[in-house]
Amino acid sequence: MRKINVVESVLQANDALARENRERMTRADLLAVNLMSAPGSGKTTLLEKTLPALAPEHACAVLVGDLQTTRDAERLGNLAAAVTQINTGQGCHLDAAQVAEGLRSLELADVDFLFIENVGNLVCPAAFDLGEHQRVVLLSTPEGDDKVAKYPTLFQLADAILLTKVDLLEVLEYNIGRVRDDLSRINTRAPLIELSSHSGQGLTEWLTWLRDQYAARGNAPGDRSAGTASSRARE
Amino acid sequence: MRKINVVESVLQANDALARENRERMTRADLLAVNLMSAPGSGKTTLLEKTLPALAPEHACAVLVGDLQTTRDAERLGNLAAAVTQINTGQGCHLDAAQVAEGLRSLELADVDFLFIENVGNLVCPAAFDLGEHQRVVLLSTPEGDDKVAKYPTLFQLADAILLTKVDLLEVLEYNIGRVRDDLSRINTRAPLIELSSHSGQGLTEWLTWLRDQYAARGNAPGDRSAGTASSRARE
Repeated sequence: MRKINVVESVLQANDALARENRERMTRADLLAVNLMSAPGSGKTTLLEKTLPALAPEHACAVLVGDLQTTRDAERLGNLAAAVTQINTGQGCHLDAAQVAEGLRSLELADVDFLFIENVGNLVCPAAFDLGEHQRVVLLSTPEGDDKVAKYPTLFQLADAILLTKVDLLEVLEYNIGRVRDDLSRINTRAPLIELSSHSGQGLTEWLTWLRDQYAARGNAPGDRSAGTASSRARE
Repeated sequence: MRKINVVESVLQANDALARENRERMTRADLLAVNLMSAPGSGKTTLLEKTLPALAPEHACAVLVGDLQTTRDAERLGNLAAAVTQINTGQGCHLDAAQVAEGLRSLELADVDFLFIENVGNLVCPAAFDLGEHQRVVLLSTPEGDDKVAKYPTLFQLADAILLTKVDLLEVLEYNIGRVRDDLSRINTRAPLIELSSHSGQGLTEWLTWLRDQYAARGNAPGDRSAGTASSRARE
């Protein structure tokens, strides 16, 4: 049982740090959004559209997780008040300690939205609470319409699900009904937003969702730390 | 250091089992191919094209790894002599013990090609040798042309790299030169095969590569177990 004990203690230590992150960010009156998806689902491209749209009213910051390279941070560098790259080496997900370190690079009091772009991985980020307030999972249409049923853990945790690259639907064999049907069995809480960063479809709906979460952020701070998030690894 | 010691011992135990798997499969005179990629890169669809093409001359078997569902195994059920689904639950990759269990479901002496379809994940499968003879990594064009540099570990290990869904290149902004340039720095050994299971482009080249590896399988059995594979987790 030694291995399992160690894994449990790693997750418990992560959850404790995540709670601290969440309290810090809640006190700073910002909304932290954890973006998760398989590699190449369009997280960075979505941020390239989202940051300029929010910029007139809101200060945004980004923590970008990648195994290697600073390419994503470079793409976003001019679009946000602050962008920090976190390189995980061979690490398959961000953890709360890395985010805590990233937060030290930011003036949290000046930030309204903090986007945390997780490592591209549809499995491992599910077990690691980072202290975010909202979890957004992207699913791109070219990945196929069977992914919700095949990778349910992450979709179960999502507060919003973005079906990205819908501009490619005309050249793909894709059944959105199948995605909705699979979601009806595991997550009926999260809206499914059909989106294309390329054509602009769905961006208004996404921005409205973000602004609604920001407006509601003072209503129930800390709910998540006592509920789903801290127990997510053991569900 | 306790955590790291445990991780090391898990990997060492995996490597020992992987060597046993490889010896068993080498003795049975079959070629085992580990297919790895991000979710939705087209592993199952490729097998739907590959298995019927090999069937006239060769007996094929498949071990299919997924967190949940038996959808992939159902898709392949009628196309191979034997298909075994391995459900990993929340596990983000196959390991050698799961493959050893899967091998017990097969009559290895009757198999020429064993395809092991790993869990869709561009990070974690890199650390776990399964006992395969050849490692094939798929990269689908809609994932973007920056993935080799961002997820180098798996691409470094590849014996062949398949650029899939190239039929979508006409509707994507994609620079294959960037992929080749990134590969030139980390893996000049593996061929890059441009492939579309939809249009058929590249399938002949892929099948030729497979048949060449099969023909060469008796030449240097076990090389991999003493070299790259057993040390891959610590590279």
